[in-house]
Amino acid sequence: MPTVDFLPAGMTVEVAAGTALVEAARQAGISIGLPCGGHGTCGKCRVRVTRGTLEVKPHALTSDEERSQGWEIACLASVASDVTVLIPQEVDASHPAWLDDVLTPSDEPERGVRELSPLGSRLELVVQAPRPADGLSDLDRLRRSLSRALDGRVPEVPLRVLRALPEALRAADGRVTLSLAGDDASLRVVDCIGGRAQVPALGIAVDLGTTTIAVQLIDLESGKVLATRNGYNAQIACGLDVISRINYAARPERLEDLRIRAVDSINRLFLEAAADAGVAPSDAVCGRISGNTVMMHLLLGVKPEYIRLDPYVPAVLSVAHLTAKELGLALNPDAMISFSPCVGSYVGGDITAGLLITDLVRDREDIALFLDVGTNGEIVAGNRDFLMACACSAGPAFEGGGIENGMRATVGAIDHVTIDRASGRATYTVIGGGLPAGICGSGLIDLLSGLFLSGWLDPAGRFERSRKSAHIRIDGRRASYILAAEGQTLSGTAILISENDIENLMRAKAAIYAAAALMLEQAGLGFDSLGAFYVAGGFGRRLNLDNAISIGLLPDIDPERFFYLGNASLEGTRLALLSREHRDLQKAAAERMTYLDLSALPGYMDHYTAALFLPHTDLGRFPRQRTRLRGGV
Amino acid sequence: MPTVDFLPAGMTVEVAAGTALVEAARQAGISIGLPCGGHGTCGKCRVRVTRGTLEVKPHALTSDEERSQGWEIACLASVASDVTVLIPQEVDASHPAWLDDVLTPSDEPERGVRELSPLGSRLELVVQAPRPADGLSDLDRLRRSLSRALDGRVPEVPLRVLRALPEALRAADGRVTLSLAGDDASLRVVDCIGGRAQVPALGIAVDLGTTTIAVQLIDLESGKVLATRNGYNAQIACGLDVISRINYAARPERLEDLRIRAVDSINRLFLEAAADAGVAPSDAVCGRISGNTVMMHLLLGVKPEYIRLDPYVPAVLSVAHLTAKELGLALNPDAMISFSPCVGSYVGGDITAGLLITDLVRDREDIALFLDVGTNGEIVAGNRDFLMACACSAGPAFEGGGIENGMRATVGAIDHVTIDRASGRATYTVIGGGLPAGICGSGLIDLLSGLFLSGWLDPAGRFERSRKSAHIRIDGRRASYILAAEGQTLSGTAILISENDIENLMRAKAAIYAAAALMLEQAGLGFDSLGAFYVAGGFGRRLNLDNAISIGLLPDIDPERFFYLGNASLEGTRLALLSREHRDLQKAAAERMTYLDLSALPGYMDHYTAALFLPHTDLGRFPRQRTRLRGGV
Repeated sequence: MPTVDFLPAGMTVEVAAGTALVEAARQAGISIGLPCGGHGTCGKCRVRVTRGTLEVKPHALTSDEERSQGWEIACLASVASDVTVLIPQEVDASHPAWLDDVLTPSDEPERGVRELSPLGSRLELVVQAPRPADGLSDLDRLRRSLSRALDGRVPEVPLRVLRALPEALRAADGRVTLSLAGDDASLRVVDCIGGRAQVPALGIAVDLGTTTIAVQLIDLESGKVLATRNGYNAQIACGLDVISRINYAARPERLEDLRIRAVDSINRLFLEAAADAGVAPSDAVCGRISGNTVMMHLLLGVKPEYIRLDPYVPAVLSVAHLTAKELGLALNPDAMISFSPCVGSYVGGDITAGLLITDLVRDREDIALFLDVGTNGEIVAGNRDFLMACACSAGPAFEGGGIENGMRATVGAIDHVTIDRASGRATYTVIGGGLPAGICGSGLIDLLSGLFLSGWLDPAGRFERSRKSAHIRIDGRRASYILAAEGQTLSGTAILISENDIENLMRAKAAIYAAAALMLEQAGLGFDSLGAFYVAGGFGRRLNLDNAISIGLLPDIDPERFFYLGNASLEGTRLALLSREHRDLQKAAAERMTYLDLSALPGYMDHYTAALFLPHTDLGRFPRQRTRLRGGV
Repeated sequence: MPTVDFLPAGMTVEVAAGTALVEAARQAGISIGLPCGGHGTCGKCRVRVTRGTLEVKPHALTSDEERSQGWEIACLASVASDVTVLIPQEVDASHPAWLDDVLTPSDEPERGVRELSPLGSRLELVVQAPRPADGLSDLDRLRRSLSRALDGRVPEVPLRVLRALPEALRAADGRVTLSLAGDDASLRVVDCIGGRAQVPALGIAVDLGTTTIAVQLIDLESGKVLATRNGYNAQIACGLDVISRINYAARPERLEDLRIRAVDSINRLFLEAAADAGVAPSDAVCGRISGNTVMMHLLLGVKPEYIRLDPYVPAVLSVAHLTAKELGLALNPDAMISFSPCVGSYVGGDITAGLLITDLVRDREDIALFLDVGTNGEIVAGNRDFLMACACSAGPAFEGGGIENGMRATVGAIDHVTIDRASGRATYTVIGGGLPAGICGSGLIDLLSGLFLSGWLDPAGRFERSRKSAHIRIDGRRASYILAAEGQTLSGTAILISENDIENLMRAKAAIYAAAALMLEQAGLGFDSLGAFYVAGGFGRRLNLDNAISIGLLPDIDPERFFYLGNASLEGTRLALLSREHRDLQKAAAERMTYLDLSALPGYMDHYTAALFLPHTDLGRFPRQRTRLRGGV
């Protein structure tokens, strides 16, 4: 059987001739990212063969020269003989070297827990010694002691704990430590050991994103975060956005594949975090998971198909507790896992969790807006009297998807750009330093803003053809901007931004702006009425606010009203894990929130079309911007 | 690798040289019964080699002649080369050809169900169609419909059902059939299908005995029994009585072995019953299991060791519902399994179930006694004011254990015996006809009674040495009775009953009588005060009442007060499965029952010693018997 060496991972696998390269990589523990779902259309899964040859289906995605250098399209390739394959960092979805630091929580107000009432705890008890005459079994005596300690409540005792009970009760003269998990509705003994436990009960907070997953390991007694791990969702290999995941999940075995990928991704991060903190995975007795509605379906193994079929109704928005065992998670098998409630097909538990670190869930008088831009964009607006939510299919442009040289905000990505007004030349910074491999969302916003404000791009997103720039390549009706020239990039080939890329970006920013404007309009409001504009998600701290406003992605309001929340979903999930108050707030918010399906509203296309300009067709909406433009070119 | 052919099963397996014969048999699906637990002491697991040779550890359990005929002790043998082994019927614990008909329910009063309130049911619902605007997921709409149908109660919806929900709700315009299981404390949706179900919800009642298991498949809508299957408990291969099972379970992997054997035994019978009735196993949505306390521990995989260690306290007497999946049972994975409550270490759920077909659990004014003689003996006495229970270690003599030529009541067993007063010759009947292979419990009672009443046996259980009989072989201080002569038996060798066997029988009958007498004495009562004497269990219909009284096993009271209940445990389990009234009665009985540990009472040894005579030292206790004896020899 042929062997395949993968670089730079240094993994070798032996596979049958004819095995798909992507499968061989999987066996080597490497997940090759397949933005188009492995259909051989996007050409993003390029790998470089440095020894031997692969068998590749015919395609026109690489030039002859590239092919002569060994570049191949991974999803079209299969193994025919011994071969060595180099997986470029941007293609390897399994081991991110670096993730955007927006995943680190910041220090906004409303983030604290007033009173710890976590979903898991430990309880020391002394259970009466066995006596022949009283007719009480080990379990009976445990239940009596529990009932006394818990004011009459008797938690469920699962079979695993029952099996451990006889020894535990006799190990230290009836002195036992129980791990409890759950809340008022349902309480369960997760573990029972004789004597005292060495560590407090632990729990995990999980932000299950379409692209990235964050896991926090938390000491439930102190509320302290012991370790945080971020990583990619291994589902990326099955499509970049929720719609392609839904399509991929159409066959039962692929739904199961997606479920396992989500479970494995969470487990990997959790086990790393546990190793980091030096604790046993079985000490984790509860968890709370927040994800968008599609991620939730996929983690549960529930078919998400009806989310994208008329009348667009999901199978499930909120579920009761499940055990780690049922879900396949690597915590204590009887650990209880709860989920942030979802609101609608495209407004999920990540949003109801994220809202917990804003005052939108509390008694806010004036109106605030919460925007989470990830692979999808979700918007919530309201105050103490109402909450409304909508989603917009911004597309993955701000995460580098659908952009020729786009990439996620990882090492090698251009994250900040300025444009020289006179020459049109770009100056940029690269995450991690060194030569650039592509450009991420914040870089794209800077680039779009810079080109527009310096007059090299017109409001419709077309390059200036009357003035010459060495950095703009005009080829008849097609034009591209040379962001980084040949030889100055990691791959050696130039990083170009085409008018097509810019069109994708403008569609994305128009979708977000139009959605926010239209939703406020439904409540008879405008952006002016907002007391606060919260920005959460992958965007985060790299975002240049001015530039985002100048391209019309964000509204032109007082910059002091903007607040960056970082990974609000993870932070909110931690709060819900630790405090009943936050669980109640989240539940109440999910219940009173109205979900708007924007595509069903007649005004949406008008709003969207009007926003397909830089910054907007109606400059009256961007007063400060108008002033700036008048003073400009 | 050597091959082993097993006859008469006709199974062949290939095993490594050195594999234990018992293990090779197991791989061939044959369970060799090991009364002494496989320690090579009882010599009961005799098999006959008809081709090749086995490697056998040294022993003195077979004569040279027997060895020359190929007879070997299975538990001491291992496979060295190709071999053919004949497993005699009485040694094969896996496929009973025939079981005592006491397992068929009879028609006693109090057996009916007044109002069906089964632990499982089916419910047809029409769930509102999905609508875009109402924000309700599939699960939300199902819950609403359920709540309306069930007066506000909302049963738990497990993950498996959630996964089936999207398709089920859309298969027949929202018309679904749900299977529900559980009771007031806990209700669960076991299944959800689109449209109507083809069959009603089914349930199983299981009597999990130490020796035999009975499974009844029941239509929960009509209460009708669709099929009943009886078979051996595959744990027999690990020891015949509960004490040897507890000893066997001392190592964790052996506890797991016992658990799997119990589960497999139940599954085999259940699947046969389902095939018999032509229904799908997944239509079984609930089950109720009754077993003695040790069987219950073993089925749950809970260490039973502390039952036989001072202060003799079991780990568990009653547990909440468990799912079929958790237990490993082959019903619908989410089927809810409940258990008859146990009362003490040696008075289990089989007893609280059996009591349901007596009036001891109801408003009985005068006193009744309930005796269940199986591998262990359990006794309950009481009325509406009190209930007391005890167990006695009668030993397996009445099931053929500890008796040289004893066997269970299967094909080939002598079940009825009469003795000619003059010659001492026996006339007998054999179960299934043909030549006898041994003698079962009812035959032993007849034999003992016959020999005693005809004067061939003295009250101390010693054979008459002054009169000669061709059927009594005196060999110095040892004497045996020739029940069936050489050449007139299945094996060709004579069936003998030794004084040692008779001693074992007398110990067994003394233990039962003494226990019943002492327990009544504790309540200030005698046998005279009994309005009814219920006899349940393996004894059943084959028992000759007069003979049982004449040897002092049963008390000498009015024969009309005796009632045979057959397999009361199975019948009571069915009632509890079908009716809330019976579940409540059973729970109340278990709670008000006092468990007496007889061995802790000072009078026990006196009672026992006094009962070690035929019929008893104190003939005043057996007035009619005394009259008969005076008129006799």
